[in-house]
Amino acid sequence: MNEVINVVKRGLFVGRFQPVHNGHLKALEFVFSQVDEVIIGIGSAQASHTLKNPFTTSERMEMLIRALDEANLNDKRYYLIPLPDINFNAIWATYVVSMVPRFDVVFTGNSLVAQLFREKGYEVIVQPMFRKDILSATEIRRRMVSGEPWEDLVPKSVAEFINEIKGVERIRMLATNLEKNEKELQAPIRIPEF
Amino acid sequence: MNEVINVVKRGLFVGRFQPVHNGHLKALEFVFSQVDEVIIGIGSAQASHTLKNPFTTSERMEMLIRALDEANLNDKRYYLIPLPDINFNAIWATYVVSMVPRFDVVFTGNSLVAQLFREKGYEVIVQPMFRKDILSATEIRRRMVSGEPWEDLVPKSVAEFINEIKGVERIRMLATNLEKNEKELQAPIRIPEF
Amino acid sequence: MNEVINVVKRGLFVGRFQPVHNGHLKALEFVFSQVDEVIIGIGSAQASHTLKNPFTTSERMEMLIRALDEANLNDKRYYLIPLPDINFNAIWATYVVSMVPRFDVVFTGNSLVAQLFREKGYEVIVQPMFRKDILSATEIRRRMVSGEPWEDLVPKSVAEFINEIKGVERIRMLATNLEKNEKELQAPIRIPEF
Amino acid sequence: MNEVINVVKRGLFVGRFQPVHNGHLKALEFVFSQVDEVIIGIGSAQASHTLKNPFTTSERMEMLIRALDEANLNDKRYYLIPLPDINFNAIWATYVVSMVPRFDVVFTGNSLVAQLFREKGYEVIVQPMFRKDILSATEIRRRMVSGEPWEDLVPKSVAEFINEIKGVERIRMLATNLEKNEKELQAPIRIPEF
Amino acid sequence: MNEVINVVKRGLFVGRFQPVHNGHLKALEFVFSQVDEVIIGIGSAQASHTLKNPFTTSERMEMLIRALDEANLNDKRYYLIPLPDINFNAIWATYVVSMVPRFDVVFTGNSLVAQLFREKGYEVIVQPMFRKDILSATEIRRRMVSGEPWEDLVPKSVAEFINEIKGVERIRMLATNLEKNEKELQAPIRIPEF
Amino acid sequence: MNEVINVVKRGLFVGRFQPVHNGHLKALEFVFSQVDEVIIGIGSAQASHTLKNPFTTSERMEMLIRALDEANLNDKRYYLIPLPDINFNAIWATYVVSMVPRFDVVFTGNSLVAQLFREKGYEVIVQPMFRKDILSATEIRRRMVSGEPWEDLVPKSVAEFINEIKGVERIRMLATNLEKNEKELQAPIRIPEF
Repeated sequence: MNEVINVVKRGLFVGRFQPVHNGHLKALEFVFSQVDEVIIGIGSAQASHTLKNPFTTSERMEMLIRALDEANLNDKRYYLIPLPDINFNAIWATYVVSMVPRFDVVFTGNSLVAQLFREKGYEVIVQPMFRKDILSATEIRRRMVSGEPWEDLVPKSVAEFINEIKGVERIRMLATNLEKNEKELQAPIRIPEF
Repeated sequence: MNEVINVVKRGLFVGRFQPVHNGHLKALEFVFSQVDEVIIGIGSAQASHTLKNPFTTSERMEMLIRALDEANLNDKRYYLIPLPDINFNAIWATYVVSMVPRFDVVFTGNSLVAQLFREKGYEVIVQPMFRKDILSATEIRRRMVSGEPWEDLVPKSVAEFINEIKGVERIRMLATNLEKNEKELQAPIRIPEF
Repeated sequence: MNEVINVVKRGLFVGRFQPVHNGHLKALEFVFSQVDEVIIGIGSAQASHTLKNPFTTSERMEMLIRALDEANLNDKRYYLIPLPDINFNAIWATYVVSMVPRFDVVFTGNSLVAQLFREKGYEVIVQPMFRKDILSATEIRRRMVSGEPWEDLVPKSVAEFINEIKGVERIRMLATNLEKNEKELQAPIRIPEF
Repeated sequence: MNEVINVVKRGLFVGRFQPVHNGHLKALEFVFSQVDEVIIGIGSAQASHTLKNPFTTSERMEMLIRALDEANLNDKRYYLIPLPDINFNAIWATYVVSMVPRFDVVFTGNSLVAQLFREKGYEVIVQPMFRKDILSATEIRRRMVSGEPWEDLVPKSVAEFINEIKGVERIRMLATNLEKNEKELQAPIRIPEF
Repeated sequence: MNEVINVVKRGLFVGRFQPVHNGHLKALEFVFSQVDEVIIGIGSAQASHTLKNPFTTSERMEMLIRALDEANLNDKRYYLIPLPDINFNAIWATYVVSMVPRFDVVFTGNSLVAQLFREKGYEVIVQPMFRKDILSATEIRRRMVSGEPWEDLVPKSVAEFINEIKGVERIRMLATNLEKNEKELQAPIRIPEF
Repeated sequence: MNEVINVVKRGLFVGRFQPVHNGHLKALEFVFSQVDEVIIGIGSAQASHTLKNPFTTSERMEMLIRALDEANLNDKRYYLIPLPDINFNAIWATYVVSMVPRFDVVFTGNSLVAQLFREKGYEVIVQPMFRKDILSATEIRRRMVSGEPWEDLVPKSVAEFINEIKGVERIRMLATNLEKNEKELQAPIRIPEF
């Protein structure tokens, strides 16, 4: 019995999902095809209500659940794990490992994530991103702010959820609110750099 | 489609699971019988390698996955969410809400958890615990330290996992190590209390 | 007696006050006219000695005390509450509520503050700002750095205090010191964003 | 004008106020008699809903406001400042100084507070406590838990407020809830101590 | 040239040093005899002014410098590294590794430190402690509080330094100050433990 | 004996050392010539694997050790102290003082460091930087990213070490990885600024 459990192969995939979009789905489809169970880490889990991180972790989980249901990726078991930032890259991979179920391989399109896990000896599979020019959360948030169409870049159920929670209004409010002075540099300690 | 998703009823259950035992299983069986999906919050997620919190969150998740498989509670969807302590009770319930999928009701046998969620307006169902005298993680850890039998108090798959990771040896090491001086009071700021 | 206390109406106003200026005073005059007691939250309370946040909380409190005395707004009771950043927007309003006396209404000219409190069910009154182009702390700090006149934009007692503590010299030092490299992006964890 | 403000003498008094009682009032009466304005620091401001710290900072502020009104100590200006713990004694006094208005003297009955401020060069006046055996928050919380009379040890308005918010029920719930296992030692890192 | 540097063998030794005593010196003599350079990690570096951690990191460094000079252990290079607690055992060893120069072996008499480093694959040499009954910092602090002789248990230069900084007075003050109520349990979040 | 120790004069020098370069060496040569022992504080010690802070504290310590050996500055005793950011400028100098051995004077080319220590009453010697246009870590990191020669700007042993750990590849990876969206403003709390 135990042996059967032990041979379950798990893959880890980390993203911010601000919001979930079709590029995430493409990537997740590949991950689901390679392993028995998928751990989805939700990065910057403490962040929300900013232009770069408009949605809460709770909302991002809801998007993932609906998108995976819509894509029929729910026949395999997956785990949704919030990962609040620790702002300490040298120990980040060890921190993630302590907070998620045991896994066998990391899937990522991000070279820093790849490097941080490789430095700790994990197998990493780098995925080329599909149509990264438009299938990026940044592009989607930009369209939301400027009033351009964005719905086709995300799963239908995610678009519906974002409309339910008035997500576009929230992002526009955040964009309006951001005054010039907020863009000034914050340089908290500023020790000498010769 | 979307409407169907919306009527899914979710329950939240929070524990430390140090380790998972038959009392947890009894309680979870009840929760699974009441809702469509179960959110299992793993408290003190940052803690491990102490007498009170010997196991990492990753290990506790493994115990939960195996125990729920063994109990055939895996036909309903469940979520495993690490909840690192924030040491700020007045905002704890709001913090939990932001870190887990939307839920409808809290199940707990702990009156503080009940109160913190009720103060924020959540429905809370208090569960009487079954044989709390022996079905407590404290009692199990005590038996592990003193060399008494403990295996019958936890699911079979959990006992196997604890043996795999040499969990009893770890707890005994922690008990040995704890010198008297460690038990002195730590009183970090100690402002006047007249 | 108690009943009288209970009918006291309190308003909350949150700002960074870097530094206190005539726009703040205009806004506070309105708040003082609407409620019995005013709670003034001092945001980013841990910040000082940066271009965006040059003054300590202690100094900002001193400015507020003097400005309110000068404006004869001291006949009503007010509270000065430091609010260190928590960098967790989803729980920020709950955090503020736990740290200040009970209040009835929030006054703000900032749409994010408005939204965060409304999401938690508080009454929020949005105030249009008076001459926001010049009556902004950003503009005042810019003038201080560039050597342009700024004194007319703040209460007389605040200008005196800033001169007492050599505040303009401090801001200029901070502006000089800020080397190009400090403006590089800090991207602490950088998880994948497809 | 400015000169007048500058000669205002301020005293700092720090307490946890769990809850406010007649001993606090006696001490505050003395402080109010010695200075022009009083800064009341509320220590362990992040703590609530524990046996040692049952009340939130917001509730403790309400108690102070009502008690000072009842004692007619409200003719002088006072400041209520939340002081979350930093668990770093060597910098605690400097931290407090940055978070409160400028002050001239510290009043305290606690020798650690006295020492930490004296080490940084502040004038400290040590107050002998009045009837410390019964006028202590610890004794009052003990009476609340055990069902003994406590109301006479606190100002009338504070007793009323505690009853309004069902404070005694909260403390009893906290006492009931505290299982034996919670009393085990937490020894987070435990580095060698030979 | 570079090759020569690379063959330098370094050992890591971690302690709290509250205060430095003859048992530490015995242990350090052994470590100095085994490696070319010694890294001395000062644990709980943020702690001071408590009964268990009376001295600041700065003071503990001064004790170490003087004791190593007195013992003529200063012919080999050593490093003094403050290690503030992170309260996250699962990542503690990785954290230490990122904060100290590269090392080859860990020396410790503490089985938890041994385990945490072994779990990350480091070589650990466990040292039996010499006369642990009296050569313990706990025993020395106990003697300081009760007025018994302690000077013979620490290096002469350390005793002189503690007297210089009035360390015994500080510990006695801390012992006096510790009221009964401070000894109550703090149970910050208290999630269910069945 | 003790008296001799007491007259040791120590200087504090704080830098980020990302990476160590010839300008640092010039500055350190001056510091070593002025005092008996040198404390080298390594700022932003928690940072690594970012464009601005590519190297871990452990790696930066290795660079310093090799560079000081190469420059024969190792005849005097020096201390390498990691200083994680606290993001609280008003208490930063006090924090540093608690974490390093007692010192007599601060050497810095950074006017903020100078001011923060002067505000706390320390003697500060400001050093003009030598050829700051090219001898800056920013310029060196820029050259590494763009493929221009940088080796002549750092000590030979540091260039060798950076090549050993494939430091240039790491920086280029970080530069590649940094997507546009990462440059968006993060404005975590954004309280009103009129």
